[in-house]
Amino acid sequence: MADWQEISGGITAPRGYRSAGIAAGLKPSGLPDLALIVSDVEAIAAGVFTISHVKAACVDYCRQSLQAKHSARAILCNAGQANAATGHQGWLDAIESAMAVAQALNIPSESVLLASTGVIGQRIRMDALKAGIPKVVAALSETGSDAAAGAIITTDLVRKSIALETMMGDRPVRIGGIAKGSGMIHPNMATMLAFVTCDAAVSPTLWQQMLSRAADRSFNSITVDGDTSTNDSLIALANGQSRTPAITEMGAEAEKLEAMLTAVCQHLAKAIARDGEGATCLIEVQVTGAQDEQAARQVAKTIAGSSLVKSAIFGRDPNWGRIAAAAGRAGVPFEQENLKIKLGDILLMENGQPLPFDKKAASEYLKQAAADASVPKDLVATNMSNDLSVDRSTIKQRIDNPVIISVSIGNGSSSGKAWGCDLSYDYVKINAEYTT
Amino acid sequence: MADWQEISGGITAPRGYRSAGIAAGLKPSGLPDLALIVSDVEAIAAGVFTISHVKAACVDYCRQSLQAKHSARAILCNAGQANAATGHQGWLDAIESAMAVAQALNIPSESVLLASTGVIGQRIRMDALKAGIPKVVAALSETGSDAAAGAIITTDLVRKSIALETMMGDRPVRIGGIAKGSGMIHPNMATMLAFVTCDAAVSPTLWQQMLSRAADRSFNSITVDGDTSTNDSLIALANGQSRTPAITEMGAEAEKLEAMLTAVCQHLAKAIARDGEGATCLIEVQVTGAQDEQAARQVAKTIAGSSLVKSAIFGRDPNWGRIAAAAGRAGVPFEQENLKIKLGDILLMENGQPLPFDKKAASEYLKQAAADASVPKDLVATNMSNDLSVDRSTIKQRIDNPVIISVSIGNGSSSGKAWGCDLSYDYVKINAEYTT
Repeated sequence: MADWQEISGGITAPRGYRSAGIAAGLKPSGLPDLALIVSDVEAIAAGVFTISHVKAACVDYCRQSLQAKHSARAILCNAGQANAATGHQGWLDAIESAMAVAQALNIPSESVLLASTGVIGQRIRMDALKAGIPKVVAALSETGSDAAAGAIITTDLVRKSIALETMMGDRPVRIGGIAKGSGMIHPNMATMLAFVTCDAAVSPTLWQQMLSRAADRSFNSITVDGDTSTNDSLIALANGQSRTPAITEMGAEAEKLEAMLTAVCQHLAKAIARDGEGATCLIEVQVTGAQDEQAARQVAKTIAGSSLVKSAIFGRDPNWGRIAAAAGRAGVPFEQENLKIKLGDILLMENGQPLPFDKKAASEYLKQAAADASVPKDLVATNMSNDLSVDRSTIKQRIDNPVIISVSIGNGSSSGKAWGCDLSYDYVKINAEYTT
Repeated sequence: MADWQEISGGITAPRGYRSAGIAAGLKPSGLPDLALIVSDVEAIAAGVFTISHVKAACVDYCRQSLQAKHSARAILCNAGQANAATGHQGWLDAIESAMAVAQALNIPSESVLLASTGVIGQRIRMDALKAGIPKVVAALSETGSDAAAGAIITTDLVRKSIALETMMGDRPVRIGGIAKGSGMIHPNMATMLAFVTCDAAVSPTLWQQMLSRAADRSFNSITVDGDTSTNDSLIALANGQSRTPAITEMGAEAEKLEAMLTAVCQHLAKAIARDGEGATCLIEVQVTGAQDEQAARQVAKTIAGSSLVKSAIFGRDPNWGRIAAAAGRAGVPFEQENLKIKLGDILLMENGQPLPFDKKAASEYLKQAAADASVPKDLVATNMSNDLSVDRSTIKQRIDNPVIISVSIGNGSSSGKAWGCDLSYDYVKINAEYTT
């Protein structure tokens, strides 16, 4: 059904993009911590940001920038300090960062967007950042996606990256993306970041609309621990370098582009959910029979976010009662007589009543989904570094093999999905034992 | 400030009430599982029930009953089977239960209210229930509160009970209450139940309004694991046996009664929060400076319900960043420049910026609040029985010594509170290792 194929190259797979990631001395660990993404030409830019009322300076900066001007050339992202709850000085630091990038690239500072992740309440180490900017500019490369993906992560266990390609007429159009985010091993490192590059030509309004819808169907449909960050940012560039006709209104071409954009965002979102602290499997909740998509998603998210459902899945326990209870409290009206619940292909409940089912088979289904529980536990426990050796096929296998919970709530025609991970001892261990 | 004193007697402290609790063979453990509360005369009755769309038969039954008739004589509560997701047969079982109580007490069946707690999807063991009803009626006593409190619990570690007395004119007015609820050790035992008795005379509309407001300030302001139950019920009777003048509109007397009703509900709600699975302390979040009480409560609940805040408290870590982040995502607009956070008396953040503070003192404050961590771990782990030996003074000490998080979000005049507990290894252990 999908009208595209996966290709290598991440955010530098689309034409006209370069990126880099270096260790600039912002993270105490000395790991890579400064990423830069640059488009050869001014690109249409859209963004979706945290709805928290406690926001980082970079979020305020990007919002203002994108309101004034729907385009950009560069995205600078630092890891180590979140620059949130840093007051006016944090705002000045953001502006100074943008100006330093502009100067090094010889572009207007209005063409630079910013993102930060790290410890809340800490200013960016500006000396290190400013010294790092010429270096990260010098390192820019058309194969620099992995380096950038590695420099934006904090407590992630793996890098998160994807690129897809489709044909429009006889020319390829590509979308790439990188992301960071997991539960929070470090306190105050609650950030989800994603950067998307595209070489199609699309109007600013349409691109923003597509991105907002894609975000609702991906990043806004995952739940690791329910805590929204001060710094969450999704920024997408579209630079037109595919040389395909400009897309200015909805239609077949626009739908194709949006579907591919959504697929990129969903891959990254699932990778984030799977990377939750201590998680042993990805959970996908599919809700059908709803009156509208938002209602379906709301029910799906409530189930995926239920601590009881999550711990039952970790215990490999096919506990339909917890799923039904979570569906019921999602705030979406439905008749409980219409409730139907499946775990994989196993029917657990129909017409609101529990069915006899093969508990062993259901438990086996849950065990099999977590068969590749090769999460590097030592890394989780010691939180020393990121396991960049996990290859893409392993990550893909983990994401493509989720525990699937299907719930039907009625006869409506709308459906929606959400993703989460199971809740393990390690989640509590990691979050309780770390001391600020 | 409080215009009342605590007295003994629980739900039988107010005049004209008897209660009982027996082992009727509903729980596989053989522990007490059937409670009955009876007023000597028809009492004004009000109720607040689960807002889940998956509801137990007893909830539908009580809702219909209280809509038709704002009074009752008796409340029957069984523990062991929730009678939720049991379809039409569950409804018939509910009606049959009410009729059996009515017959045994020689009252109309419309005067009987019902509550159930236990495993979702299981019908009540009707043979045992019907055989038990004459026995529980025979056991009714004016000192039967503790027996009833012990028969409504499932996975609770302790019984929850309170009675308060105030003077109206020269006559005493009393309100008593019992409750059950904790996190969910057993799957599908997600129920919070509370029964309140009062001997004042009050009009039905006013009593329902008072109860709804009291519920918002108590049971609706606690969070253990965020999962709302299929069976949650709060039922309050007011039988007029204090022989004080009828209260029919708001005024000094009504306010006094409502304040005492709220205090009863808050005590029971805090006891439930403190009894959360694996919890080592009660957390009270006080939010001030809000535009209205509901907004303040919303922020307080979001903080009290944050898995990250809860695990930080368990780790005795004064992590203001997690508190700020939770406040920010509560859906209540505020200027982050106005954010102020205190832990006990220790100021952590002011004007939206972190302050230097004595981390050791803050951590000590957290440790001291959990000093009485005498939760009987073995009982939690084996889930064999309830520790009814914990005396009231110990329970009171645990509740009266919470970790206090104070947050101010602006210059508004409204405030609100919420209560929760910390998140420990045992929560995950209990919820993952139990197998249906």
